[in-house]
Amino acid sequence: MNQQIKAYGTKGADEKLEALQIERRETKAKDVRIEILYCGVCHSDIHTARNDWKNSVYPVVPGHEIIGRVLEVGNEVAKYKAGDLVGVGCLVDSCRTCHSCNDGLEQYCENGWTGTYNSADKHLGGYTYGGYSTTIVVDESFVLKVPENLDAKGTAPLLCAGITTWSPLKHWNVKKGDKVGIVGLGGLGHMGVKFANALGAHVVMITTSPSKAADAKSLGAHEVLISTDESEVQKHLNSFDFILNTVPVAHEMDPYIAMLKRDATMVMVGAVEPLKPFHGGGIILGRKRIAGSLIGGIKETQEMLDFCGEHNITSDIEMINMQDINNAYERVIKADVKYRFVIDMESLKN
Amino acid sequence: MNQQIKAYGTKGADEKLEALQIERRETKAKDVRIEILYCGVCHSDIHTARNDWKNSVYPVVPGHEIIGRVLEVGNEVAKYKAGDLVGVGCLVDSCRTCHSCNDGLEQYCENGWTGTYNSADKHLGGYTYGGYSTTIVVDESFVLKVPENLDAKGTAPLLCAGITTWSPLKHWNVKKGDKVGIVGLGGLGHMGVKFANALGAHVVMITTSPSKAADAKSLGAHEVLISTDESEVQKHLNSFDFILNTVPVAHEMDPYIAMLKRDATMVMVGAVEPLKPFHGGGIILGRKRIAGSLIGGIKETQEMLDFCGEHNITSDIEMINMQDINNAYERVIKADVKYRFVIDMESLKN
Repeated sequence: MNQQIKAYGTKGADEKLEALQIERRETKAKDVRIEILYCGVCHSDIHTARNDWKNSVYPVVPGHEIIGRVLEVGNEVAKYKAGDLVGVGCLVDSCRTCHSCNDGLEQYCENGWTGTYNSADKHLGGYTYGGYSTTIVVDESFVLKVPENLDAKGTAPLLCAGITTWSPLKHWNVKKGDKVGIVGLGGLGHMGVKFANALGAHVVMITTSPSKAADAKSLGAHEVLISTDESEVQKHLNSFDFILNTVPVAHEMDPYIAMLKRDATMVMVGAVEPLKPFHGGGIILGRKRIAGSLIGGIKETQEMLDFCGEHNITSDIEMINMQDINNAYERVIKADVKYRFVIDMESLKN
Repeated sequence: MNQQIKAYGTKGADEKLEALQIERRETKAKDVRIEILYCGVCHSDIHTARNDWKNSVYPVVPGHEIIGRVLEVGNEVAKYKAGDLVGVGCLVDSCRTCHSCNDGLEQYCENGWTGTYNSADKHLGGYTYGGYSTTIVVDESFVLKVPENLDAKGTAPLLCAGITTWSPLKHWNVKKGDKVGIVGLGGLGHMGVKFANALGAHVVMITTSPSKAADAKSLGAHEVLISTDESEVQKHLNSFDFILNTVPVAHEMDPYIAMLKRDATMVMVGAVEPLKPFHGGGIILGRKRIAGSLIGGIKETQEMLDFCGEHNITSDIEMINMQDINNAYERVIKADVKYRFVIDMESLKN
């Protein structure tokens, strides 16, 4: 029988988030019912709550960086049992039959994956509701095992900010000795620095803010490059094996392209909007590449979590109560957070 | 002893090309002296003659699609002998020691390659003079062997238009059964169609001009897609394994990106200017890639010529006399040529 649960969301683009009642489906044969402990706050949550991408269906309950404990499992679930520490990221289903799904890349599902929130719900009709809620019910194939040795709070942002940076670093084979640039030091960028460092790369934080240098180094950057300083850029021309660009808005691309080696790639993971024009000559002279990358598949998300368990990597976070969410949104927009807000869901249960 | 020879060039950006006398170096130990039979007319010739790229040093003698016969060789030359049919493309020297040169990619020489014209001349001082001339002297390492079975006139454009399209098709591993789009049907695009067809791909000519459909098919395209017809674009969404974009000016990129498969690449070879902005979401949703590619290295240019010999591939050309060059430039600018002008250099000798 479906359950009414507590959640926090918004009924319109101009309204603040507030307490809501939503429905979760019963625990079906392949389902895992999860008590949500923590949920990270992603910039996408804000875009969706405020209908920035013009595809929001209200009420919206955001949240796709979910950490929780298994409450119960369906009678065909083999991978999980009650009490397991688990995670749910941006996807809760996909077609499972297309080339991308078969390749373990459900985030590129050719028939359309089901997002954790604001996505057509195959089970209940209507639209899915995310992690700003007390419980969630997810097919076991889209549930991740979280290493028990990690701090569970700091693990929440791995499910989106983490996998979004991990996936391109691994896909483009960043390895020991590579010179890797991370552009932008926010929720994504700070994970990019940690991962690139742990993979053995020489990590250069590329930022417009000199004030971020000390933080970047403490996170694992070996160098900090101020990209508005042209003489700095000149020193690094044609030298990067890979650049991960996490800036969430359109920005000048030419200086970064100029710093790529021949055949090297800059991967955009943040700017979901029209990019600024860059010079054709910049990519032609050096056979350079610009690519995009979207979150990651379930298999690689599990690999990332296992890697984090081995290397004791979590996100740097600020904990908030559910009731603080509207203020937190304003601070995210001002990039006033180091580096991710995580909601303590206990505060919603009270 | 250096030689004075006949050439055709311009003394300033606003002047027409006319007969000039220039100097060629004596035939040194590693040099090949070539009697030029034919020289193709590349759009870059016009950009340089008219100083569009703000780097022209006058007098300029253009021409880097050179076919000729060896007149004499230096005493250390092993690869060529008098009478051999040979070609010279865009490069006549490079550092030969950097990573790119060691990889056979002299066009990306990290210390700067020597262009066939308008490039600092290591031997005579001043700047190099190109193929709009009766003879040229080139180090044997930068001379190509031309298959004798090919029509020599139609071979000239292979040295630039040919290799510029061949190199990315091979580098990105276009193979039998791939769905390959060629954007733009000019000097480069018509070679792209021929090569992609010969490599066994399913070739789709992508053009804004319905009038080009019949020509594209006769050149080897299996389909023609009118990119301004949105319903046509919709039919091809996420379906191309590779797109070669030969358009020489900035243009809308989003429709082409939308037609790439996951992980597929569109390579820009024509637009050496600021590109139009495209949407970050277009590359992020599908991990798609935009790359550039510049002409090709000497080794791959030889491989292309050998392939052309085996498959009897040459460029479609219109022959002109040297004295027609100013009119030909105007027609190139209007894209009024099928598909490349080639100068019969006999006309300069008279």
